[in-house]
Amino acid sequence: MAVVGRAASRSAANGPASLQDMRRQNLAVVLAAVAAHSPLSRADVSGRVGLTRAAVSSLVDELIGRGAVTEAAATASGRVGRPGRALTVSGEGPAGLGLEIGVGHLGACVADLRGEPRLWRRVERANAGRPPGTVLAELAALAAEAEAEAAALGLRVEGRVLAVPGVVPNEPRGLVERAPNLGWHTVGIADHWPEPETAPEPENEANLGALAEYWNAGTPVETFVHVSAGAGIGAALVIDGRLFRGARGFAGELGHVPVHPEGPECACGARGCLEQYAGEAAVLREAGLAQDGPGDPVALLAERAANGHAPTLAALDRAGRALGLALTSAVDLIDPDGLVLGGAYAELADWLLPSVCAELAARVTVRPWAAEALRPSALGRRGPLLGAALTTIRRIMADPTLLPAG
Amino acid sequence: MAVVGRAASRSAANGPASLQDMRRQNLAVVLAAVAAHSPLSRADVSGRVGLTRAAVSSLVDELIGRGAVTEAAATASGRVGRPGRALTVSGEGPAGLGLEIGVGHLGACVADLRGEPRLWRRVERANAGRPPGTVLAELAALAAEAEAEAAALGLRVEGRVLAVPGVVPNEPRGLVERAPNLGWHTVGIADHWPEPETAPEPENEANLGALAEYWNAGTPVETFVHVSAGAGIGAALVIDGRLFRGARGFAGELGHVPVHPEGPECACGARGCLEQYAGEAAVLREAGLAQDGPGDPVALLAERAANGHAPTLAALDRAGRALGLALTSAVDLIDPDGLVLGGAYAELADWLLPSVCAELAARVTVRPWAAEALRPSALGRRGPLLGAALTTIRRIMADPTLLPAG
Repeated sequence: MAVVGRAASRSAANGPASLQDMRRQNLAVVLAAVAAHSPLSRADVSGRVGLTRAAVSSLVDELIGRGAVTEAAATASGRVGRPGRALTVSGEGPAGLGLEIGVGHLGACVADLRGEPRLWRRVERANAGRPPGTVLAELAALAAEAEAEAAALGLRVEGRVLAVPGVVPNEPRGLVERAPNLGWHTVGIADHWPEPETAPEPENEANLGALAEYWNAGTPVETFVHVSAGAGIGAALVIDGRLFRGARGFAGELGHVPVHPEGPECACGARGCLEQYAGEAAVLREAGLAQDGPGDPVALLAERAANGHAPTLAALDRAGRALGLALTSAVDLIDPDGLVLGGAYAELADWLLPSVCAELAARVTVRPWAAEALRPSALGRRGPLLGAALTTIRRIMADPTLLPAG
Repeated sequence: MAVVGRAASRSAANGPASLQDMRRQNLAVVLAAVAAHSPLSRADVSGRVGLTRAAVSSLVDELIGRGAVTEAAATASGRVGRPGRALTVSGEGPAGLGLEIGVGHLGACVADLRGEPRLWRRVERANAGRPPGTVLAELAALAAEAEAEAAALGLRVEGRVLAVPGVVPNEPRGLVERAPNLGWHTVGIADHWPEPETAPEPENEANLGALAEYWNAGTPVETFVHVSAGAGIGAALVIDGRLFRGARGFAGELGHVPVHPEGPECACGARGCLEQYAGEAAVLREAGLAQDGPGDPVALLAERAANGHAPTLAALDRAGRALGLALTSAVDLIDPDGLVLGGAYAELADWLLPSVCAELAARVTVRPWAAEALRPSALGRRGPLLGAALTTIRRIMADPTLLPAG
């Protein structure tokens, strides 16, 4: 079993610091320097991180032993400052497996320690209303195929994370509390997984989409709100570069923020929730399209909007205004550096952004707000699965001792 | 100069860990154990924190040298497990000075390292529209008096923090960007302080009120939203026990969350902001009371409500419903463990809580929400000034090396 669990890296702030904590932190610092600036020699690393060459060499030896770093002859390019063997993050060995359950598909992705996705798998499946055991058995088979293919590439899966369109509480771990669009209630993933020791850790898809966005950015914004639409509306908060899950794991429930308190009744029992304006069903209804029609409804909306179909344009304008109202609350409360429209919203951004921007400009007035802080995600609907694969990678980067010693 | 600055404690996560970082952290761990469980012997501390007795003795000696801990004969009470001299946090020596500028007063408070407020000063002053230099000169005189009186109690002020009813950006430090109810724009505190080296660090009053609430609680909720009303409405977010100021310092601007998007026009230029329903001016207007009348308007509202004055009860119900709508957004986005009504709202809680609770119960339905998570602050309008005094104390507790070595 080689599961990189989220409980594995403990916070040093909770107890006395030890030499072991110090070494763990310095391994991470050296690995981060190699990842950011490779190829580097050991001397280059020493210069960058401010540790002695002897200390760096001991740390590098351990990183090589654990399979996180490889050392080769310096390239002739001159990019390495001094003669010396070049260190790079391993493109073989440790890897992370991401899995995804959507309303209409299953997915898998394997990423290497460099953060590169090395393989993608997707099968179309109408998962709504199917028994969780059936869905998870199929997903386990897909996961096993992906792991076998990864092994053929020299990759060894060290952790497994599953993106689900549902609520994943902080405690207990491993549970999907509610996934309304799948019809799931209180599903323990390991209870339905053929080999419990390889059961993936579930996480809300919006959260993983936001993390993928953060990790994928060259110069990331450190504090942002990521709003995405699939069958429902999900938001995720990244605060100082870390996902904020809320006290119990329910943060980012933007879909039920009241935008017009006396508005239409929502399935949740309240009135005027954002989902009644900017949810997929509401937009399709306003645009005069059937919700269960053939094909990809998001692509259909984009096509109609591009062709100037008036009801579709009106529906997207209405959705954008409601999103702008809900995001005004988010900006007022959280003061993010950025707002990202992800998932299906990214593909509809051309028609949503103008009205979202207009509401924000009219309503965020007592403090500075720059229109360019709002942008569509570059990853769109691939974000959650990529985020699931990268979660394991980021944990290893933060604590290389999670890898077995060489 | 003995300023405990907020930049002084650096995050170890940003660079390699050193033995010095380890010692700093272990000093804080020992000091926290003494604060939580005193009187303790050195042996007791060793048992509690999991460091050797030799290590603990060296750390205790340093804490005594810095004036943070005192060591006395064990009490006869038997509370100390084994014979040995009892360690306690010093009630003399290091102290924090809190200062406050309100629309109608100036205040000062000194707290000792145990977190006890040792003196309070308050003078009534109509500060709205006065030149910042005049206000700050008077406050500096009040601060000097408080420091002199603290010195007579054996207390030495190690840091100064000022609560202001305005926006304090993260950068640059020391600036009040906007305090509409004072009429301030871009005021650098040190520019107007007689001795720049004793100039206090400004912080938004709502933020300090929330911190005081957190530090004052026996078993604090770690993640909560604190909403308070003075002349304006301020909210503050405490996340995992730490104040969240937002990317630029503007988090918690709850007063301009849109609650009825087509509602009355607000001074900010938008429509239907929370302040138009739950701000002091709006409540007084709805209750049929003059805004500039004599006496304390909050006490007057409470008196009328207690006497069953129908327009006042209606105004507070309307305010509570609007607060409930804005707090629904906060709960959906942030998933706090608690909501606290502070400042003037605490004194009006009897009449606000029913309608706030009713809105939350009707609108927070897709995830668990317990009515008892909403409660009034025990500190009320004293919170911000106490929070200002305690800020310095909490910094010293987190990094005792901020104190001069003995």
